[in-house]
Amino acid sequence: MLVNSHKYGRRTAMKIIQTPKEMSEFSEKMRGEGKKIALVPTMGALHEGHMSLIDIAKKNADIVVVSVFVNPTQFGPNEDFAAYPRSLEADAAACEERGVDVVFAPSASSIYRKDASTYVVEEEVSANLCGKSRPNHFRGVATVVSILFNIVRPHAAVFGEKDAQQVSVIERMVRDLFIDVEIIRAPLVREKSGLALSSRNKYLHGAQLETARRLSQALLVGKKMVEDGCLNIHRVKAEIVNQLSRSSRIRVIYVEIVDAKTSLPVKEIVPGKCRAALAVWLDQTRLIDNMVL
Amino acid sequence: MLVNSHKYGRRTAMKIIQTPKEMSEFSEKMRGEGKKIALVPTMGALHEGHMSLIDIAKKNADIVVVSVFVNPTQFGPNEDFAAYPRSLEADAAACEERGVDVVFAPSASSIYRKDASTYVVEEEVSANLCGKSRPNHFRGVATVVSILFNIVRPHAAVFGEKDAQQVSVIERMVRDLFIDVEIIRAPLVREKSGLALSSRNKYLHGAQLETARRLSQALLVGKKMVEDGCLNIHRVKAEIVNQLSRSSRIRVIYVEIVDAKTSLPVKEIVPGKCRAALAVWLDQTRLIDNMVL
Repeated sequence: MLVNSHKYGRRTAMKIIQTPKEMSEFSEKMRGEGKKIALVPTMGALHEGHMSLIDIAKKNADIVVVSVFVNPTQFGPNEDFAAYPRSLEADAAACEERGVDVVFAPSASSIYRKDASTYVVEEEVSANLCGKSRPNHFRGVATVVSILFNIVRPHAAVFGEKDAQQVSVIERMVRDLFIDVEIIRAPLVREKSGLALSSRNKYLHGAQLETARRLSQALLVGKKMVEDGCLNIHRVKAEIVNQLSRSSRIRVIYVEIVDAKTSLPVKEIVPGKCRAALAVWLDQTRLIDNMVL
Repeated sequence: MLVNSHKYGRRTAMKIIQTPKEMSEFSEKMRGEGKKIALVPTMGALHEGHMSLIDIAKKNADIVVVSVFVNPTQFGPNEDFAAYPRSLEADAAACEERGVDVVFAPSASSIYRKDASTYVVEEEVSANLCGKSRPNHFRGVATVVSILFNIVRPHAAVFGEKDAQQVSVIERMVRDLFIDVEIIRAPLVREKSGLALSSRNKYLHGAQLETARRLSQALLVGKKMVEDGCLNIHRVKAEIVNQLSRSSRIRVIYVEIVDAKTSLPVKEIVPGKCRAALAVWLDQTRLIDNMVL
C-alpha cells in the first residue's frame, strides 16, 4: 500500500507494510544499499510523544520504520487490550506528515501463531515497579520487541522514557542476548499542564484531566526535596505518595526511586542519577509517570 | 589465533576466535563480501557425529563456523558441567583437518555477564521428554543458541538429531521469534555397535559400553514392532522399556513416542512420522537415544 506525500517534498511515498515477509524484504534491500534503519516501535494512537521519537529516529538513520502493533501478549487478562485506542489511518497520516518511510502494521495473527510457545524473559529489571502489578507484561514486551527486531532488522531503535522501566528492560535484553541494535532513549514529553503524553490519556475526561496533573506535580515536589538536600528515599517517596493521595480519585499502585538508567532499586538518592517512578489508578485508568531527581 | 593447515589445500588458515566482538566483526566482513555462513554449535569433545555436521555445513555455506562452548546454563545444579569433557586443542585440530574456517571458543564470562537476567524460553516442546527431568535445560539451550546466532549471524545452523528434541525446540524458537537462520537437521551417527555417538560416551568403560548397545537394540525392537504392524503406542513403549530393563545397570528415565519433527506427543504411531525417544541412566551416566519408527 502506498500513500502519497502532500505536505513535504519526499523522494518516495511512505509505504504501509502489513506482512512480516514484505517488511523483512524491504529491510534487506535497504541494508543491501547501505542504508541505516531506525525503528520506532509503537502501539499506535500516536501523539506528540511518538512524533518526538520519530524526529530522533530521523536524525539517526536513513530509513525510519514506525511499527504500529497493539501487542496482545503485554496486556494482562483484565487489562485494556480490547479498549486500547486504535487509529491506523490517523497514525499513518501523522507518520507520513512527519517524514516516516515505512509504517509496519502487521496483524496479530501474522506475528503470533496459535501455537506460539517461545518467549523472551528478563527477570531482574522486570521484577520491580510495573512488573509487580502487571505479571507477564515485560515478557510480552521483550518478546514482541525481539520479534520486531528480527523482522525489521534495524540498526537502531528509539524508545521513550515515559516507559523508563521498559527502556531499561530492553537495554538489558539487548546486552544479554548480544542483539545488534542500538537503543536510543528519548525524553518524556509533557503537555503544558505537566501531564505526560500517553495514548491512555484518551480515557480521561473533564475533572480527571485536572486530577492527572497531580502526577507530575507530585514528582516535582519530590525533585524539589532532593534539590533542597533531602537524599532519604523513604522521605521523598512518602512525600510523593502524600501529594498523590490528596485526590480521592487516585489510588497509588507504587512510588519507587530507582537508578535512572537501569531502573533497579537504589539504597540512597544520588541527584541526577535517580528516577522517581510511579503508577496510579485514576478512577478506571492506569497511569504512569517518572522524573529524574 | 591462526592455525596453519597441513593436510588439505586451503585458501586461508583456520581461525580460532575467542571473543564475541572479534567473531561479530569477522561475520560482518564475510556477509559484506556476500559469503554464506553456516554455524555448527557444539560443546566440544568433538567426535564423528560432529564431523558429519561440519560436512553438511560445508555443503550449505561458504564459511563454516564451529562454536565450542560448554554452556553452563543448560546444566542443572547436580549435573556434569564440571566433569564434561573439554579438549579444545584436539577439537581445533579436528576442525582444521575437516576444513572448518573458524572455531569460535568464547569464555563463559564473555557470553554471560554476572548480572545476566535475560532468557529465551520455549514452553511447549520443552515440556516433554528431557525437559521433565532436566528443568531449565532447554531454557539454557534456547538462550545460548540465540546468543550464538546474534554473535555469529549465520545464514544456516546445523543441529544433530541425536538431540532430536533440541532441534525441535530450536526450530520452534526460530519460527516464533522470526529468527532469520535456516535450521538444518543432521542424522544421528552410530558406532558399529549401534551406540549413538555422544561426548558423554567418554564416561563409559568396559562392561558399560557393552550395556550401552542395548539402547539402540531396544529402539530397533520397537521399530520392528511398528514394521510388523503394531501402531499402539503403549505396547511399543512397554516393549522398549522391557528391553532396556533387562540390564540391571540401566534405569529408564523415559521412553516416549513423539512426532518425528516437532517432538510433541502423538496419539498413535504413523510409520515414518514418529520417533521413539529415550533417556536412561547407565550407572552414573545419563544417555539418550532416538529412532524414527
